[in-house]
Amino acid sequence: MKPVNIGLLGLGTVGGGTAAVLRDNAEEISRRLGREIRISAVCDLSEEKARQTCPSAAFVKDPFELVAREDVDVVVELFGGTGIAKDAVLKAIENGKHIVTANKKLLAEYGNEIFPLAEKQNVIVQFEAAVAGGIPIIKALREGLAANRIKSIAGIINGTSNFILSEMREKGSAFADVLKEAQALGYAEADPTFDIEGNDAGHKITIMSALAFGTPMNFSACYLEGISKLDSRDIKYAEELGYRIKLLGITRKTGKGIELRVHPTLIPESRLLANVNGVMNAVRVNADMVGETLYYGAGAGALPTASAVVADIIDIARLVEADTAHRVPHLAFQPAQVQAQTILPMDEITSSYYLRVQAKDEPGTLGQIAALLAQENVSIEALIQKGVIDQTTAEIVILTHSTVEKHIKSAIAAIEALDCVEKPITMIRMESLHD
Amino acid sequence: MKPVNIGLLGLGTVGGGTAAVLRDNAEEISRRLGREIRISAVCDLSEEKARQTCPSAAFVKDPFELVAREDVDVVVELFGGTGIAKDAVLKAIENGKHIVTANKKLLAEYGNEIFPLAEKQNVIVQFEAAVAGGIPIIKALREGLAANRIKSIAGIINGTSNFILSEMREKGSAFADVLKEAQALGYAEADPTFDIEGNDAGHKITIMSALAFGTPMNFSACYLEGISKLDSRDIKYAEELGYRIKLLGITRKTGKGIELRVHPTLIPESRLLANVNGVMNAVRVNADMVGETLYYGAGAGALPTASAVVADIIDIARLVEADTAHRVPHLAFQPAQVQAQTILPMDEITSSYYLRVQAKDEPGTLGQIAALLAQENVSIEALIQKGVIDQTTAEIVILTHSTVEKHIKSAIAAIEALDCVEKPITMIRMESLHD
Repeated sequence: MKPVNIGLLGLGTVGGGTAAVLRDNAEEISRRLGREIRISAVCDLSEEKARQTCPSAAFVKDPFELVAREDVDVVVELFGGTGIAKDAVLKAIENGKHIVTANKKLLAEYGNEIFPLAEKQNVIVQFEAAVAGGIPIIKALREGLAANRIKSIAGIINGTSNFILSEMREKGSAFADVLKEAQALGYAEADPTFDIEGNDAGHKITIMSALAFGTPMNFSACYLEGISKLDSRDIKYAEELGYRIKLLGITRKTGKGIELRVHPTLIPESRLLANVNGVMNAVRVNADMVGETLYYGAGAGALPTASAVVADIIDIARLVEADTAHRVPHLAFQPAQVQAQTILPMDEITSSYYLRVQAKDEPGTLGQIAALLAQENVSIEALIQKGVIDQTTAEIVILTHSTVEKHIKSAIAAIEALDCVEKPITMIRMESLHD
Repeated sequence: MKPVNIGLLGLGTVGGGTAAVLRDNAEEISRRLGREIRISAVCDLSEEKARQTCPSAAFVKDPFELVAREDVDVVVELFGGTGIAKDAVLKAIENGKHIVTANKKLLAEYGNEIFPLAEKQNVIVQFEAAVAGGIPIIKALREGLAANRIKSIAGIINGTSNFILSEMREKGSAFADVLKEAQALGYAEADPTFDIEGNDAGHKITIMSALAFGTPMNFSACYLEGISKLDSRDIKYAEELGYRIKLLGITRKTGKGIELRVHPTLIPESRLLANVNGVMNAVRVNADMVGETLYYGAGAGALPTASAVVADIIDIARLVEADTAHRVPHLAFQPAQVQAQTILPMDEITSSYYLRVQAKDEPGTLGQIAALLAQENVSIEALIQKGVIDQTTAEIVILTHSTVEKHIKSAIAAIEALDCVEKPITMIRMESLHD
């Protein structure tokens, strides 16, 4: 069979990794695929880097020229972002090129434009590398679990945040100190906002939610709360109570709509997700027939991400000349079956909660707080007086049972209105990961 | 598109589950697939069960009649075993039917006959349910990780054994007692040999080894050692040293050949695999580009296994009318690229070891043992005198660094020859899971 011709947009970390994987594992890949994968053209700001990395490929300065070339069957977009990347991908699709991309932001924010165009043009858009790096989670959701109604997904899908939280727990360090360490190690960028404030995880859980439930992308409705305001005391108290705090992307189908949210979350320490440390990623899927499954691996890095990019190229290479009727649909469901669904506002989601309250250390305080929670029908799993901050102030930690978020918010407002309580109360969501 | 017609062989646990998944999730499946999956014929010993479970399917008494029917596109073999199941599958393939099977024994022992025939007849044989139940590990090995050279696989792939080991550890109970409990709970069969002596895990690791390295099936060369002789003291001592004992299926590519083995194994308690408890399964894959990935879920049970069976049917339904040139190859590699490779005899494998020695509690014993290990170039990670058994006998636990198995065996023989040592010495293999 003739080779599959790749046009590569971008030779950054993942682009360089992709070239390395295609070069170093060429033989093993063609043992599997039965044909060769050839980088025929490459576009990068640095011509020198392009010529060094892909010596037998044509160097193309203009991405729009690359996506129009006759010797390109598959465009691999590794620019990132939603500027040129978006325009080049749309143009490539118009030109009938298949697409492989690692660009979570592009798909979560513009997927509703990209996928319908791809269907119209009969091209394949693959994006395994966009979620959880080298873990084949998109394939699992779209094919491996295709017999199931998916109920919920919870994932550690941002390695930077997970590294910071792991270090804060192990060393008892403050957020700002660990962030500096992570930056020195190259695990966090100079401007880490995107990772630590939940945007990156939000893009990824948005994509997984669409695949799981057969909906359009809904990033604008995704609740984002990062880890920058986490106090290491809360990590310590959580641990004393048998929990770890992780930044989770969560999506769950309920009778009223879909929950779609990213926030720090207490999870019981016995759960596998609680034991995923450092920069590693893991995604837990709960589905009606198979029950709980979990997928673990490297969520970033040149070679792990390139492993997913190249798997996507191989998938396309198998189908590139086949008929189009029997492909795996882009968003797991047939295009006509993709249905918009309500994304629940945060007030309507269901969760358990960890509260930390600083209050005057005097008789009756605990009782007053408990009464205000009861008034909102919030039932208490544990209410513990932790250390005394100073002579007159005590710190109280409360774990609640499951409730609708608006009730806990009302209760918090009522408790904050007490004279004996300091504002603000710390509130962190908690998931048992049993559904 | 017209429906895909299924012929179902066997309505036992998994067969009944498959009928249930196809019935209860028909709508969600066809939202994904774009066509209907219809059970057109069913074969079971009980006609009554068949009519109740699949009321709109034809009941067929003779499996060879079913695999010849014109209204059957895909034969789903859920008889199990290698008697009628084998003959029916081979006949179905000769008749040009695609196959879905959960039969690990059939594939591990007769795969070298089945797959070449399937290639000759241009039919697809899918077997996701044969390994680790509902976990999509076959798809991960064959497609998700297709860009990698796979280095090693280690898996907890027998739920019965894992349940027994988990209970022995948690409750300090003896093997025989926990086995009885497992039988009462339905987690172990009346004759549990197949599960507890490693045969079942051996079939599964044989299949994964072939997929990982592109070799024929090699079950007869797979080393099998079960858990029935495990002493709960060794579980306790291992735990004191920071290890858990799991029944692992292991396969690893080395310069000299492939390791292929099933045995109880010490693994560091911090590893995710060490924390996979009860009847759950998990498979860790180490590959050159993506690094370590892990896949966790239910390894057995009607609905989880059926989830995998139906995913396979969906895969075939997508390809059933497409051309044959671009399919995912059965054993991950193109048929012409499947290469026989040496399976290393156990004497040649590399591992670390846990030894428990009962010896006279007298000066010089430890020194003599250490000298005999040194003589075989076995280096010691830890050598600890545990409790004293009686007035004159002490129990010594030794952890070694990595060595070739023949050296540890020579050292054991030499130590057992000492007058002061009781025979036999307990030896359990140990894996760091870092490669």
